[in-house]
Amino acid sequence: MRRYLPILDWAARYTPAALAGDLLAAVIVTIMLIPQSLAYALLAGLPAEVGLYASIAPLLLYAVFGTSRTLAVGPVAVVSLMTAAAVAPLAAQGTPEYLGAAIALATLSGLMLLAMGLLRLGFFANFISHPVISGFITASGILIAAGQVPQILGFSARGETLPEIAQALLSRLGETNSAALILGLVVMLFLFWTRSRLKPWLVRLGLADRSAGALSRAAPIASVAVTIAAVKLGGLDLPVVGDIPRGLPRPSLPPFDPALWQAILLPALLITLVGYVETISVAQTLAAKRRQRIDPDQELVALGAANLGAAVSGGFPVTGGFARSVVNFDAGAETPAAGAFTAIGMALAAFLLTPLLADLPKATLAATIIVAVLSLVDTGALGRTFHYSRSDFAAMLTTILVTLLLGVEAGISAGVILSLALHLWRSSRPHVAVVGQVPGTEHFRNVERHHVVTAPEVLSIRIDESLYFPNARFLEDRLLAETADNPGLHHVVLICTAVNVIDSSALETLEALNARLRDSGVRLHLSEVKGPVMDRLGRSPFLDGLSGQVFLTQFDAMMALAPDLTRTTRAAQRGETAKARAAR
Amino acid sequence: MRRYLPILDWAARYTPAALAGDLLAAVIVTIMLIPQSLAYALLAGLPAEVGLYASIAPLLLYAVFGTSRTLAVGPVAVVSLMTAAAVAPLAAQGTPEYLGAAIALATLSGLMLLAMGLLRLGFFANFISHPVISGFITASGILIAAGQVPQILGFSARGETLPEIAQALLSRLGETNSAALILGLVVMLFLFWTRSRLKPWLVRLGLADRSAGALSRAAPIASVAVTIAAVKLGGLDLPVVGDIPRGLPRPSLPPFDPALWQAILLPALLITLVGYVETISVAQTLAAKRRQRIDPDQELVALGAANLGAAVSGGFPVTGGFARSVVNFDAGAETPAAGAFTAIGMALAAFLLTPLLADLPKATLAATIIVAVLSLVDTGALGRTFHYSRSDFAAMLTTILVTLLLGVEAGISAGVILSLALHLWRSSRPHVAVVGQVPGTEHFRNVERHHVVTAPEVLSIRIDESLYFPNARFLEDRLLAETADNPGLHHVVLICTAVNVIDSSALETLEALNARLRDSGVRLHLSEVKGPVMDRLGRSPFLDGLSGQVFLTQFDAMMALAPDLTRTTRAAQRGETAKARAAR
Repeated sequence: MRRYLPILDWAARYTPAALAGDLLAAVIVTIMLIPQSLAYALLAGLPAEVGLYASIAPLLLYAVFGTSRTLAVGPVAVVSLMTAAAVAPLAAQGTPEYLGAAIALATLSGLMLLAMGLLRLGFFANFISHPVISGFITASGILIAAGQVPQILGFSARGETLPEIAQALLSRLGETNSAALILGLVVMLFLFWTRSRLKPWLVRLGLADRSAGALSRAAPIASVAVTIAAVKLGGLDLPVVGDIPRGLPRPSLPPFDPALWQAILLPALLITLVGYVETISVAQTLAAKRRQRIDPDQELVALGAANLGAAVSGGFPVTGGFARSVVNFDAGAETPAAGAFTAIGMALAAFLLTPLLADLPKATLAATIIVAVLSLVDTGALGRTFHYSRSDFAAMLTTILVTLLLGVEAGISAGVILSLALHLWRSSRPHVAVVGQVPGTEHFRNVERHHVVTAPEVLSIRIDESLYFPNARFLEDRLLAETADNPGLHHVVLICTAVNVIDSSALETLEALNARLRDSGVRLHLSEVKGPVMDRLGRSPFLDGLSGQVFLTQFDAMMALAPDLTRTTRAAQRGETAKARAAR
Repeated sequence: MRRYLPILDWAARYTPAALAGDLLAAVIVTIMLIPQSLAYALLAGLPAEVGLYASIAPLLLYAVFGTSRTLAVGPVAVVSLMTAAAVAPLAAQGTPEYLGAAIALATLSGLMLLAMGLLRLGFFANFISHPVISGFITASGILIAAGQVPQILGFSARGETLPEIAQALLSRLGETNSAALILGLVVMLFLFWTRSRLKPWLVRLGLADRSAGALSRAAPIASVAVTIAAVKLGGLDLPVVGDIPRGLPRPSLPPFDPALWQAILLPALLITLVGYVETISVAQTLAAKRRQRIDPDQELVALGAANLGAAVSGGFPVTGGFARSVVNFDAGAETPAAGAFTAIGMALAAFLLTPLLADLPKATLAATIIVAVLSLVDTGALGRTFHYSRSDFAAMLTTILVTLLLGVEAGISAGVILSLALHLWRSSRPHVAVVGQVPGTEHFRNVERHHVVTAPEVLSIRIDESLYFPNARFLEDRLLAETADNPGLHHVVLICTAVNVIDSSALETLEALNARLRDSGVRLHLSEVKGPVMDRLGRSPFLDGLSGQVFLTQFDAMMALAPDLTRTTRAAQRGETAKARAAR
């Protein structure tokens, strides 16, 4: 029970000190989350209030099911962009169908996360390698920032790819609203400045480090308040968010439309995987700092519940936010209750602040987004990866280029497929060494690296990998080629020291190899087979049909198959030792 | 040059003996191929003559580019079924669009094969594990045989899945043509009998083994001749093949229609992979029997050329046929010239025999197909695989069920995805052992299997696998969990004896682990790192930031980190040795 409801664990031992820490953290995160949630809803192509809704129920549910003490869930930039990319082809922005598709996306993603958690399928996230996710997040950051430029210029223009955005931007450059442009640039400069300089400045003014940090987190909400005031009092004429319904969302159900669900299947899977990978990486970083432990499978359950909560309360897919969780941690959050208090803060905002937000300039939110996402862009990673591994670099560059030019779904898919293909390629060519005997010993080493002796009628080959389907064909090709090239060959010995598994494909390959070698007059032997592998081979008819023998050690094999060689090298060794002795 | 044109190799050394062998084999294969090529064209939903066309140009091209001496290419059952499944949703059978789509499929598959051959991407075929291909072929055999039952009953009814075929069959059972049914059953019984009994019977009658074998291959064409005669002379009223244009095909180009090409992209890829896997396995089996060598990359080029040839001559996808190649081999084919002679035989058939084929009952061809494909069905493989490996069994059963219930494309895709997921799952949980020191020695062994000593402040962990993205998260989870559970821990030593590669994902994981362990007061050390891995680590900033050290051996690590332990166990060892000496 406690495994699935971590709240039972921490709630029983809740202390006043934890309450104080959680409350302070909740206030700071709420202040940070209000502008972000509005901005990311607009980024997803949804009405601004949906962002507030997606920051209430999911946070409460994560507090019940989550194992991380400090993770802050809610709408995040990359997943909002992926939501827009998934939903835009299905319905026109602003229609109930568009919102319905976003809700369906949250539902499906929630169900997938839940299923992965309960069936312990979290390993699926391993499909996405680090270079792919890093490249994807960099490219998404660039796409998001570019997509906000029209808002700064005072008009709306959407695009799923960099060329689309550029075209939309250029064709409507004449519509630039100078009030929006000036306000947007000022907010951006202010936010960039507060990001890097405000905290040290406040500390120099005499504030405590922690209060200075908390105050500098309030910069985005301060921009929101100031620009609302500027519009109201200054009578600026620029695009604003407009009227927002007051209060809490009404519970909703996702639309039932099989065609819709089929269309969002792949996007939902990609959102699920990307969201999970990001969440788990933040949660583990923070947990390790306090030597706490998170349960990756239970995190899937918690994120699933959070997304189902988002769906029912009319929101869109949510996940763990990086910056937000770090702020929560730094502000002293002790338990997931901090998240629940943040949810209460967001609910209060939905009641009290919504009337004020009608005059909020969209350019302010666009500036907030641009400043937030540019920290996601890590172009240095390209150079570092190039330096370290060319194949990882290829996967990263492909992900970035395809994401920018063809969109997020194509980008992450291309990256995943390419990195899997490269992985399979690597595992399909394991290291294989032809070995010979180190003269006068029972040791066998690679003929290319050591001075060893071999018998022309025996080929001893060591494979440094388990035998399974990605490399079964390689072994077959290699051994048949060796046999065709050596007419004097009568025995092949496969040394299995490094073979932990032989799967059915490899077993069939061995059976075929055995038959093919027998047809050409060569016997196949095995040596140094591990116990569990031998047990399993015993359950198949392979050993009965084996043309050769299974030797306990490679030395036994050579003693039996090429006794002269062993004797000769021993004699030579003795001779040399005698010579050496005589020389002394 | 010789690498890409193997004909240069064998044609220069062509002998009269080889010519005799090739000619005889060509006659026997032609006799076998005429009914099969007609039948498989009908199976693909195409006019019968297309089967003849697909058995001319592809064979000539394979003779030029192929490296197998005995492989016989042409239309085969499984690929014909896959062609029907790919084309049926795009156009109505019998229309020029249907034929155009089949030609486009052959073109695209040919280009894919050619590209894979020239770019050396043959390893892509490793994506399909043996249990998946075996399950797929069994299920395809069942689907094909079931799909021919309506033809035996004298009417046409198509279906892509077993339920569809069953429904089509039951709803039209009243249309059964008794002449077709009787004729079909008689031909089937005759073919089953000749398959197993004719050859021994001919040998008992005094024929040489080889002639008896050749004669028994003529059974299908004899059924064709006899049933044509029965229709012509007996005036039977049953569905026949109808008029077939006489002579060679006119060269054609595939239709240019982007939507069509996009629709056939996945089917073409699947046909390419399945065709290649089958071809290479037959070619290798036969080559090994004579200690010949085939070049898998060049085989891709040759199959690609054969398919482009099929496309230009108005045919459909072709590949290496199993039964046909074995017959070619047994009949004494010495070089690919046998295939070229077969092509000439098929061209003659297109000129001379076509007028006779108008009265060929479709039931005869259906019987030919059923008898041919039932040999593909291997239900015993299910039991053998279950016995040997549960995960391989799961992949096989899934492939069979999905193929039967949802069709060929879904079936092979599901099998490939499941087997890749299982493979990734396996490689995402490598064997990891916590090790301790064998008292008094420099050896370290698994604490769970051996009597060893450990220091409470040092965790030594050995990972028996390279570190790359599928298992990076596993290592992270495992180490962070161990750290969270051991508050007294100050050092973690990662023993890298089995680590051949550390990819970028694993490097980032190690960097994160290093930082996270440092945050919780634990230092990370490495020991026994291989030379190439160390070189690569040196190119990254990882070693500079490492909180601990890199030790040459694990013994060095324990000497440095827990000197007391080493000293104590040595002293204990000495004490025991002394005691043992005293007792003696």
